[in-house]
Amino acid sequence: MSTPAVRMTLGQIQAPLRDRLESVRGEIRRIVQSDFGLIAEVNSHLLQMQGKLFRPTLLLLADEATGARAPRAPTLAAVLELIHLATLVHDDSVDHSTLRRGMPTINALFSHQISVIMGDYLYSRAMIELVRLDDLEPLRILARVTNEMTVGEMRQLLAVEPMAFTEQEYDLLIRSKTASLMSGACEVGALGGSSEQREALRRFGDALGMAFQIVDDLLDYTGDASVTGKPSGADLREHKMTLPLIWSLERMSEAGRKTVRRLMSSPTPADDQIGEVIELVASAGGLEFARSRAAAMGEIAEAQLDYLPPSPAREALRATVPYVLERSH
Amino acid sequence: MSTPAVRMTLGQIQAPLRDRLESVRGEIRRIVQSDFGLIAEVNSHLLQMQGKLFRPTLLLLADEATGARAPRAPTLAAVLELIHLATLVHDDSVDHSTLRRGMPTINALFSHQISVIMGDYLYSRAMIELVRLDDLEPLRILARVTNEMTVGEMRQLLAVEPMAFTEQEYDLLIRSKTASLMSGACEVGALGGSSEQREALRRFGDALGMAFQIVDDLLDYTGDASVTGKPSGADLREHKMTLPLIWSLERMSEAGRKTVRRLMSSPTPADDQIGEVIELVASAGGLEFARSRAAAMGEIAEAQLDYLPPSPAREALRATVPYVLERSH
Repeated sequence: MSTPAVRMTLGQIQAPLRDRLESVRGEIRRIVQSDFGLIAEVNSHLLQMQGKLFRPTLLLLADEATGARAPRAPTLAAVLELIHLATLVHDDSVDHSTLRRGMPTINALFSHQISVIMGDYLYSRAMIELVRLDDLEPLRILARVTNEMTVGEMRQLLAVEPMAFTEQEYDLLIRSKTASLMSGACEVGALGGSSEQREALRRFGDALGMAFQIVDDLLDYTGDASVTGKPSGADLREHKMTLPLIWSLERMSEAGRKTVRRLMSSPTPADDQIGEVIELVASAGGLEFARSRAAAMGEIAEAQLDYLPPSPAREALRATVPYVLERSH
Repeated sequence: MSTPAVRMTLGQIQAPLRDRLESVRGEIRRIVQSDFGLIAEVNSHLLQMQGKLFRPTLLLLADEATGARAPRAPTLAAVLELIHLATLVHDDSVDHSTLRRGMPTINALFSHQISVIMGDYLYSRAMIELVRLDDLEPLRILARVTNEMTVGEMRQLLAVEPMAFTEQEYDLLIRSKTASLMSGACEVGALGGSSEQREALRRFGDALGMAFQIVDDLLDYTGDASVTGKPSGADLREHKMTLPLIWSLERMSEAGRKTVRRLMSSPTPADDQIGEVIELVASAGGLEFARSRAAAMGEIAEAQLDYLPPSPAREALRATVPYVLERSH
């Protein structure tokens, strides 16, 4: 990276935002609140599942870096997190996932039906709240982002011929699936800034989101330090082609490709098979390549920050780049 | 009914709207358009499934009856129909339905996953289009309505103790499930009118929607003339309590209630059992009662029309009341 930023934990990045993030949590609770028993019950489970609020953090930092400190920013950040949650609830239902952030998913704990309805509930509550803010701009950005995410989900479903999945298709997939919402977070946060700043922060979020997903996909090969330190191979098990393998496939021996093809056509690949393919990818240099692509995305992100005046919030945004690149879970 | 309106078919009601309804169809095609193969494929199936555009008709009539004839009305009507379609796609997936309007549902023809994603796609496209109209009022109404419909779906799921389901719970269910969108259609159509007219048309749509659903539920007992003329009993088969049975249950002999209880606790009720319960409901007067409640709702709807100046559109709205009450499929 051009400016080797000091490695900060997310906690350190978020420390100056403590009060505002507390407001975000309060706003989330307020917005989803329902006196309908079952909805309240699902909500309380979702609130426990609440993640690290990384996307709200980006929004609040973009807000501060453009000098706005808009009073509505915590509400916008809460809406953003709810859209993210709605997407996760539907994704888990589509993927039949049973665990999310170490907790049972809504579809596992309640039912598939409740997941579909609850995702719609969260999303429409988020829309109601956006309308209440009486400004079409955040709605314009977030409706577009939500639509892009659904296209991303379709792309994911269609990656059914894993051996033919290209790097370009992978880029389109992760841009719509992951980068669009981070980009939207930064752009909505920047609405109080100049149009040049808004555009720069939109690009920042896009590049950061691409890096985020590449690293996420890499962790499947290198291991999640918070769990076992061993690669999970979960994507391979589900026949999901990600960057390390896509890149390595062309650079393997015919025997190697055969091993991959065997895994991809096996309904329930064995642990050995998965370990073998991880090995093949590592020796073909696929992990190195994915790391370098993520780093290049990080550089693109960081370069956008030159459009912002110097400020602690700008430096906090800068620190999110190594955080994303070096996170181990 | 106070003014016994001449019975008109929906085609007759819609005749003066022919050009505008054609625009609505064009707008629907334009809004959902996608160059992503699978989405385009699902779209073309959905467009074939397109119904009678009853909700867009209400919106256009409300627009004309308030004297607005807003150029944006066909776009709003298209958005409304898309929200309706998105809801149907998710509902069919939640209910595992295989047929809708005589055609295979998206979940049956494609997959459950595609239904969830496609519903989200349609809804977010509708939101994008609403934002493009640069007016928060339709968004305010339709975000609220969408949220009410998700609560309605939850109520439906929770009606798991059919024997304890009350008339009041039934009213809440059909209001959120069906009446909310018809009410939203009329209110959005009336946005060019006075606030008194807007409120009257909102109430008109609410009462009409209640009547619509009561009649729909009655057809399960009396038969759908377009298909077999025989009662389908599909609701009973799925243990769905609707007004005729709710009302009759308290007015039956203990033996009758036992028969109902047996049906409700049988995972796959036999045709005989269903026929027997339909008979019990008919002789308890449940069908008559439901018909009279629908008619009373129709009268409430019609009374709202006094808030509008005389016009052909107002009379067309009046004609939707007997259309809803007397339809046989």
